[in-house]
Amino acid sequence: MSHIPTPEGLPGIRGLFAFRPETALPLNELVDVLLQGPNSLTPGERELIATYVSAQNDCYYCQTIHGAVAAAHLDGNEELVQKVRLDFANADISQKLKALMVIAGNVQKGGKQVTDQDVAAARREGASDIEIHDTVLIAAAFCMFNRYVDGLATWAPDDAEWYRDRGRKVAEQGYVNATRQYIPTLVGAGEKKIS
Amino acid sequence: MSHIPTPEGLPGIRGLFAFRPETALPLNELVDVLLQGPNSLTPGERELIATYVSAQNDCYYCQTIHGAVAAAHLDGNEELVQKVRLDFANADISQKLKALMVIAGNVQKGGKQVTDQDVAAARREGASDIEIHDTVLIAAAFCMFNRYVDGLATWAPDDAEWYRDRGRKVAEQGYVNATRQYIPTLVGAGEKKIS
Repeated sequence: MSHIPTPEGLPGIRGLFAFRPETALPLNELVDVLLQGPNSLTPGERELIATYVSAQNDCYYCQTIHGAVAAAHLDGNEELVQKVRLDFANADISQKLKALMVIAGNVQKGGKQVTDQDVAAARREGASDIEIHDTVLIAAAFCMFNRYVDGLATWAPDDAEWYRDRGRKVAEQGYVNATRQYIPTLVGAGEKKIS
Repeated sequence: MSHIPTPEGLPGIRGLFAFRPETALPLNELVDVLLQGPNSLTPGERELIATYVSAQNDCYYCQTIHGAVAAAHLDGNEELVQKVRLDFANADISQKLKALMVIAGNVQKGGKQVTDQDVAAARREGASDIEIHDTVLIAAAFCMFNRYVDGLATWAPDDAEWYRDRGRKVAEQGYVNATRQYIPTLVGAGEKKIS
């Protein structure tokens, strides 16, 4: 049972978003920019980074839902997602993405674990400044999301089809829009001017 | 030297915000809600949680700047901030805040480290659902910010007066507004409609 009362039927971070829409909005805007915004890394590649970090943090809900979003972006290739989650070094992904995964894995352990060598290796494979920046921030953000979801002991469905369905919706519509469907108040908040 | 080129004169996360204003906006909106929005925990108490978690993650920039923001909210009581950072159990803070600090400290270690007992202890001291939620999310968010700042090897000033000055500005103006002063593009982004 989760540590705080969340609306029935909303697992994982969804219950927390409904409990606290004020923080749900910037959190969803952040992942929209990081995972689906314009970028030389594809949405599928970025979701793979999120999935891998969530697996390293042993967060069942996050690694499963982001694995499903990744698969939705990657023509349903769940096998590739599984391989990256467990053994990215031997997965069928680019050398650049492998080098970025090394950086992400070190961010998961702690910011100071990222070495000059890690960054130089990624650059040798063609990684740009933005790609390095975004990899670090995606990995760091999932160290937040994973702790948020597990630190409040939210529940997670064990039905793979539930994650596939949700993964497809998020891949198609984006995070803010998909979240708005069950938190109508997010609309008003999203339209506020912050000035 | 930081792993990516950031504008001269902007230390810590400020250089990263300038490098990537698209992610700077939701990140600043998140801390405005979490640390300065309406809450039964004072801004000073919430900044103490942020400072403590940043110290546990050994992030010099974050623990120093948020310690300065905390002190600015607490009538300049830097001694209290130091005490909380190093030994909160014996600091002159409420029993409720001590119980919330235990939760924050466990979030820092990993989401699953937060126990039912930790939460029950906080409730016995009068902590509300929102206070427990926000403590977990503040702690989780600083596990992100600390990794972001150190994972990209940003530089940090060692002049205490720099942090005091900046801490006062942030305490007075809020995070988005204080950030806008050196990233003018944040204005336009902040005024966008997300629909």
